Amino acid sequence: VNHWYSLMAEYGMALDEDRLEDWVELFDEQCDYRVVTRENVEQGLPNVLMWCDNKNMLRDRVESYREVNEYNLHYDRHVIGPPKILQQDGVSARIEANYVVLQTDQGGNSKVFSTGAYHALLVLDDGRMRIRDNVVVVDTFCVQTLIATPI
Amino acid sequence: VNHWYSLMAEYGMALDEDRLEDWVELFDEQCDYRVVTRENVEQGLPNVLMWCDNKNMLRDRVESYREVNEYNLHYDRHVIGPPKILQQDGVSARIEANYVVLQTDQGGNSKVFSTGAYHALLVLDDGRMRIRDNVVVVDTFCVQTLIATPI
Amino acid sequence: VNHWYSLMAEYGMALDEDRLEDWVELFDEQCDYRVVTRENVEQGLPNVLMWCDNKNMLRDRVESYREVNEYNLHYDRHVIGPPKILQQDGVSARIEANYVVLQTDQGGNSKVFSTGAYHALLVLDDGRMRIRDNVVVVDTFCVQTLIATPI
Repeated sequence: VNHWYSLMAEYGMALDEDRLEDWVELFDEQCDYRVVTRENVEQGLPNVLMWCDNKNMLRDRVESYREVNEYNLHYDRHVIGPPKILQQDGVSARIEANYVVLQTDQGGNSKVFSTGAYHALLVLDDGRMRIRDNVVVVDTFCVQTLIATPI
Repeated sequence: VNHWYSLMAEYGMALDEDRLEDWVELFDEQCDYRVVTRENVEQGLPNVLMWCDNKNMLRDRVESYREVNEYNLHYDRHVIGPPKILQQDGVSARIEANYVVLQTDQGGNSKVFSTGAYHALLVLDDGRMRIRDNVVVVDTFCVQTLIATPI
Repeated sequence: VNHWYSLMAEYGMALDEDRLEDWVELFDEQCDYRVVTRENVEQGLPNVLMWCDNKNMLRDRVESYREVNEYNLHYDRHVIGPPKILQQDGVSARIEANYVVLQTDQGGNSKVFSTGAYHALLVLDDGRMRIRDNVVVVDTFCVQTLIATPI
């Protein structure tokens, strides 16, 4: 993974394919992952729906999720738009990219599950691109399981 | 903004985040912006839903929109696909890119608001990429406000 | 067509614009195109919904489709996400990209028609990029016509 498009694509596909452990490995050790609602962002409120401020917390979260959720009863599919590059140098890039997650139930019906944007800091480490920070700004968010799946 | 992906991403995000004045600044002074229905394009009809043939008209339009629409009662989210490059040289590129706009209401429900394609001429001016022309071909279009928002 | 983004964009637009013959031309002579359900892929089942293992079969399929389906009663719109590059050298690239197809009916209502992923092998031939293989893994698939349209 050494281009933004491969990294963003794998980010979505690892979640879609329930490869949450692979998803964690896309992050840097000193990472920060949080999910916030767009409403809170616009009103300057500090609430977060999910927050992991290092990679071990992400690992723990995925492990807890695995213990509680045995079966996926639907299929998710991330489609991510082109990134806006806010800043970049040879070793890092700050980007924003819109996304939509479509969800298909067992009856074969697809609907919009979540829309929002990733505000991410990508870093290059030994030729491999990883996620240092990712703030997921969600327009919609449903906590459907005891421990919500990352997005 | 000097890559197609940053430009297209900012195009969508400026609209999504109600930064219409920033959106106008993505255009060249001698720009042409129009919104047409796919049905009219396929039947060779000249109707347009919206047309601004220079940047001052775009500025006026946004100003009028601001006067009429005080509140956004929903969230928009553009997800734009990869561009087809029809022609390019060192200073300009003619592209087409499909898009979907998802809209989330205050109850947290998301739906498909508009799908279509951008047919755009991008120009490079002093290392900065801008939009010379953009024809938005819409499959769906709802005029929901007195003065419709750009798309 | 010599970049992944142009090729993937044209792939979707040729289908959306009912230019099926152009779509066939994006493939290499020794191509393989198949549509499979995600459920079958995950369970290791060999079922396919559509399979053409060379370009003449693709041509025949499009021809048969033309004979049966006279009118398009809806508009399709592909929005394709960034590609994950699994492997690449100077002349070929193995990629995966998520997609969503939105469909708009004659009443102007848009809905999610299909979501899924392309698993494709792209090859470069005389500076022109073509599709050698494409396995379309569909989360949703509706056979709505006597001979289903490609996706």
